[in-house]
Amino acid sequence: MSRTCLSIILAAGEGTRMRSSRSKVLHEVAHLPLVRHVARAAIAAGSERLALVVGRDGDKVADAVRKDAENVRTFEQTERLGTGHAVLAAREALAEGYDDVVVLFGDTPLLRPETIERARAVLAEGAGVCVIGFRPADPTGYGRLIEEDGELVAIREEKDASEAERAIGFCNAGIMAFAGDTALDCLDAIGNDNAKGEYYLTDLVAIARGRGLAVKAIEASIAETIGVNNRSELAAVEALWQAGARERAMISGVTLIDPQTVHFAYDTEIGSDVLIEPNVVFGPGAAVASGAVIRAFCHLTGARIGEGSEIGPFARLRPGTDLGERTKVGNFCEVKQATIAAGAKVNHLSYIGDATVGADANIGAGTITCNYDGALKHLTEIGENTFIGSNSSLVAPVKIGAGAYVGSGSVVTEDVEADALAIARGRQVNKPGKGKLIAERNAEAKRAKKSQS
Amino acid sequence: MSRTCLSIILAAGEGTRMRSSRSKVLHEVAHLPLVRHVARAAIAAGSERLALVVGRDGDKVADAVRKDAENVRTFEQTERLGTGHAVLAAREALAEGYDDVVVLFGDTPLLRPETIERARAVLAEGAGVCVIGFRPADPTGYGRLIEEDGELVAIREEKDASEAERAIGFCNAGIMAFAGDTALDCLDAIGNDNAKGEYYLTDLVAIARGRGLAVKAIEASIAETIGVNNRSELAAVEALWQAGARERAMISGVTLIDPQTVHFAYDTEIGSDVLIEPNVVFGPGAAVASGAVIRAFCHLTGARIGEGSEIGPFARLRPGTDLGERTKVGNFCEVKQATIAAGAKVNHLSYIGDATVGADANIGAGTITCNYDGALKHLTEIGENTFIGSNSSLVAPVKIGAGAYVGSGSVVTEDVEADALAIARGRQVNKPGKGKLIAERNAEAKRAKKSQS
Amino acid sequence: MSRTCLSIILAAGEGTRMRSSRSKVLHEVAHLPLVRHVARAAIAAGSERLALVVGRDGDKVADAVRKDAENVRTFEQTERLGTGHAVLAAREALAEGYDDVVVLFGDTPLLRPETIERARAVLAEGAGVCVIGFRPADPTGYGRLIEEDGELVAIREEKDASEAERAIGFCNAGIMAFAGDTALDCLDAIGNDNAKGEYYLTDLVAIARGRGLAVKAIEASIAETIGVNNRSELAAVEALWQAGARERAMISGVTLIDPQTVHFAYDTEIGSDVLIEPNVVFGPGAAVASGAVIRAFCHLTGARIGEGSEIGPFARLRPGTDLGERTKVGNFCEVKQATIAAGAKVNHLSYIGDATVGADANIGAGTITCNYDGALKHLTEIGENTFIGSNSSLVAPVKIGAGAYVGSGSVVTEDVEADALAIARGRQVNKPGKGKLIAERNAEAKRAKKSQS
Repeated sequence: MSRTCLSIILAAGEGTRMRSSRSKVLHEVAHLPLVRHVARAAIAAGSERLALVVGRDGDKVADAVRKDAENVRTFEQTERLGTGHAVLAAREALAEGYDDVVVLFGDTPLLRPETIERARAVLAEGAGVCVIGFRPADPTGYGRLIEEDGELVAIREEKDASEAERAIGFCNAGIMAFAGDTALDCLDAIGNDNAKGEYYLTDLVAIARGRGLAVKAIEASIAETIGVNNRSELAAVEALWQAGARERAMISGVTLIDPQTVHFAYDTEIGSDVLIEPNVVFGPGAAVASGAVIRAFCHLTGARIGEGSEIGPFARLRPGTDLGERTKVGNFCEVKQATIAAGAKVNHLSYIGDATVGADANIGAGTITCNYDGALKHLTEIGENTFIGSNSSLVAPVKIGAGAYVGSGSVVTEDVEADALAIARGRQVNKPGKGKLIAERNAEAKRAKKSQS
Repeated sequence: MSRTCLSIILAAGEGTRMRSSRSKVLHEVAHLPLVRHVARAAIAAGSERLALVVGRDGDKVADAVRKDAENVRTFEQTERLGTGHAVLAAREALAEGYDDVVVLFGDTPLLRPETIERARAVLAEGAGVCVIGFRPADPTGYGRLIEEDGELVAIREEKDASEAERAIGFCNAGIMAFAGDTALDCLDAIGNDNAKGEYYLTDLVAIARGRGLAVKAIEASIAETIGVNNRSELAAVEALWQAGARERAMISGVTLIDPQTVHFAYDTEIGSDVLIEPNVVFGPGAAVASGAVIRAFCHLTGARIGEGSEIGPFARLRPGTDLGERTKVGNFCEVKQATIAAGAKVNHLSYIGDATVGADANIGAGTITCNYDGALKHLTEIGENTFIGSNSSLVAPVKIGAGAYVGSGSVVTEDVEADALAIARGRQVNKPGKGKLIAERNAEAKRAKKSQS
Repeated sequence: MSRTCLSIILAAGEGTRMRSSRSKVLHEVAHLPLVRHVARAAIAAGSERLALVVGRDGDKVADAVRKDAENVRTFEQTERLGTGHAVLAAREALAEGYDDVVVLFGDTPLLRPETIERARAVLAEGAGVCVIGFRPADPTGYGRLIEEDGELVAIREEKDASEAERAIGFCNAGIMAFAGDTALDCLDAIGNDNAKGEYYLTDLVAIARGRGLAVKAIEASIAETIGVNNRSELAAVEALWQAGARERAMISGVTLIDPQTVHFAYDTEIGSDVLIEPNVVFGPGAAVASGAVIRAFCHLTGARIGEGSEIGPFARLRPGTDLGERTKVGNFCEVKQATIAAGAKVNHLSYIGDATVGADANIGAGTITCNYDGALKHLTEIGENTFIGSNSSLVAPVKIGAGAYVGSGSVVTEDVEADALAIARGRQVNKPGKGKLIAERNAEAKRAKKSQS
């Protein structure tokens, strides 16, 4: 599409029903702020310019959106005088002269780029305004889209609608696109001669038609038009987003034993023939290569999982985790900021942080990389084909050379050269009969405690 | 409400379909026995006296209810001769002369206090009997409430109903309130001249009307009237309870990313702007202060979590846990009977039991408080600003003074004074080339095993 | 039933929509391949002979089914010329002369044995063919079963159906049984004179009727007839299977606090009065005896759990786990290939693998059995009434005698005789003031790092 496009994202709503210290549009769906969902849809639909109309937290909102786009400008809406007024807060952006102007809501995160593209296509065919409508299960309360001969002739509010008009199921979603060349002129013509004294964007329909411009409506799915006003609605939108992501994953060749219990982030990547057991939570930045198995109860953020790897159950991968092919990270293991090479195993109750683990290394149960000295994080380098005995503590910075063997229960504070054996533990002393004495003393102590209570 | 009130809770049902060794009304919803839900609703609606009509496990049922109320009296129902007969088992309580008498079912836990209050208000306005009805999706099989001019004139059983009466959707929930002054007289008038030879409480409608008393009906929601007869119904009631609790939490300003996966207990308290990731289970006695984040896969019972704290994923907090502000308890950590002061961190694979941890202390990965000696539990006292190196064992009773530093992998058996360094681990010995010998021997052992099989 | 029976399972479909490197019928529901569900239903309905019509992965499919039955024979379907052609691939099996022949689909795993038995009963009463139908919510697109006087007179495809016939809700599920003596003759009469040039099994109805044989239809539930064509449908079938298993468990006396979150395997056995908290995943081979409590977040595979035991939260039991009565396995514990006797406790952060634990033993927090030496797994034998101090490492092969006491933090490499005390740890050294020096140095290091960034 060679037409230029400005998207105005209305994000100034107070969001008081969120009962939050944070701006509504910064609350997240799939680990992405609502407003970023909207901005990304706009960008995907070809918008090269974003104008954010913001209220409180304007800087934070802009900072969030700038993660997706450079060409972002914010406009503060100081008074709340209706959607028409809000759009005009971005007057300077409108004056820059884009072919298409799209008005989006920062709290309506499921609108698809394809729908924006369709609206823009209507403008490209010559319309002055394109309104996005939807068909709710029950249209009561919504403004009805009155069409004649393929033209949108009016948006009729419930209270003003005739009985015949109320029977119309096609309703106004509030989202709109209009031709940039006539936009400012039309917007300035919106008046506030109504009960609330507000400027309504919906008046654009009559204004544009009065100027001889064609006005059209297109239909979006119900989900695309859902706005978030409280945290229950936030959860409902999250559920819709997740349902879509799960279905797409399954159709593409990922087995989800219980889809409802797998939670994706906005950027999760899953390869083909991956099996995901129930109860897996993906944070941002996770990628799973094909053929991997993710067992139940895993929490995976910022981690790359190599082909054919087996993760979990009960594994926690944190940012900076990079697992090679056929690695295993098992139950009650935490990995962060660590590269684990192909074929290496971290199977039980271990913490591997700030580390490199070589290929085919075997990290015994209960191994801990002691990466923090109270001030700084230090690196543990574990060579390939090493064997780290169970319950070992590797006190970083420390290097375990390739092929080395660390005895179980060792506290390794010095480097171990390649192919060496390291043992660092106390000597065992057995005291015959002493266990029995302790048992007798314990039994006595228990009796004493019992007689007290 | 200045009127006195007696609530009679019928809890003598056998509950054989529960297939349980426990009385049905002692099975739990949201970690509270069914009968306690009912008792608490009665008390919240102003009932100062509770009469429990019990069968087997009568003492256990009474013990359960006494956790909510002191003024509880049990009456054993030895024979099962109908609801009218059951209520009269509490004859002595009825004779005490309360203004209002409310009859509730011990297996119907979702009845709201507001509904009982409405029934009592009807009595206060002069009615002799108030029946609680509901409108099921399909009324087939239920007794219909026949009203005329705002009066309840009859409860008609399905089999006796005319076609017009069967079309009535308003049905008898069995729950009833009646004026105390005429209660015993009316109840004694219930006969058993029917097919089963039982005494039906529903006969009170006709009896009261025969005595010139006004009889009214009020409506409860369907959920309020659901009784539990088997464990599938128990789960259905639990689901309804949880759905309500989740919705209330979200509307009050708690983010639940996937509400369906968060399980509250009856007394869970959550502050505002708390974020709860998927898959969090609250047992009884948990309180989360505002601004805290509870990550996925946490199990929290009897724990207080301070403002702005971060818990989980994979944290287990047990009774007696008291976390200050901005504390962190991370993955695979268990805390019980421990106070952890503001800013302290227990981030990885640790067990902190019977302990105090001072402000801003850093508890390394894999730290274990060895609190049990086989007989008694002992205290571990960890001062503020301490650093406990990873994989340490703190053998209680033991004190680590403020500002002390414990080396990784130490087994601390003696107190460490403030600002001291403690190290308690074996010395490391490296044996060059010995690791390679072991690897060769291992390779040989593997070959040998393979050739055997 | 004394009639002999051959079941022909059609399992040659490409399953391209699964987008999998594995044959469709080897994908699993409740941890059992689809085709094994079908085979087990056939066997349970009295089929002594199974003929698998296979395409790719034929050997793997046969291997899977042979876990349930010995009398399995595979027939490769080299061309795909319709269901009639597919059945005839098993011509040699058909020629063996069974009384009943049942044709099943390898991707339709929820068909119940009772339904197959009913179809066979229809044959036993003299019918030549029995078609299994179902009543979908919307019959559009399905072949309608046209019945007259209790006989099935035709299967009418949607496109050929009259308006009256389209109003019929009873549809062809594709599953069919026919009398063995006339089977081959009828099957050979199926032609391919149709648009696609394929051989349709549904033609059997007309052919059998033309030979004077009685043809009947019986009804199955919708769920029984659902076939799996992609992974979304696989998940839907899994959900139906799980819903049934959960309901059966609850009705039999198992409390599931949130049934939706408990995942059973095909062979899970749960005793009465067991309580299962939310989020429990059973892999194959798990059995839970009565009165046990399974807390939230457990992953249980190949494990036997004794009466009155308490497992979890966050426990992982792997194959070979055998827990006696009243055992406890607590949070962040993994057990595999281990027998734990009555009353023993493994409560916190432990790994018990390749071990025996005696009755009433107490395994302290963080205990690790170091079972692997890099080549082989070795046994740890822990006697009854032992006390293993927290954070101990037991380096196998090793024996801890009955009544012995192991000090916390010990690395036990040598056997401990009965009633002895074993300690194997470093001696503690406290260095006064040294902790403060480290803290000061750390503060300096933090400042330096901060000034760099």
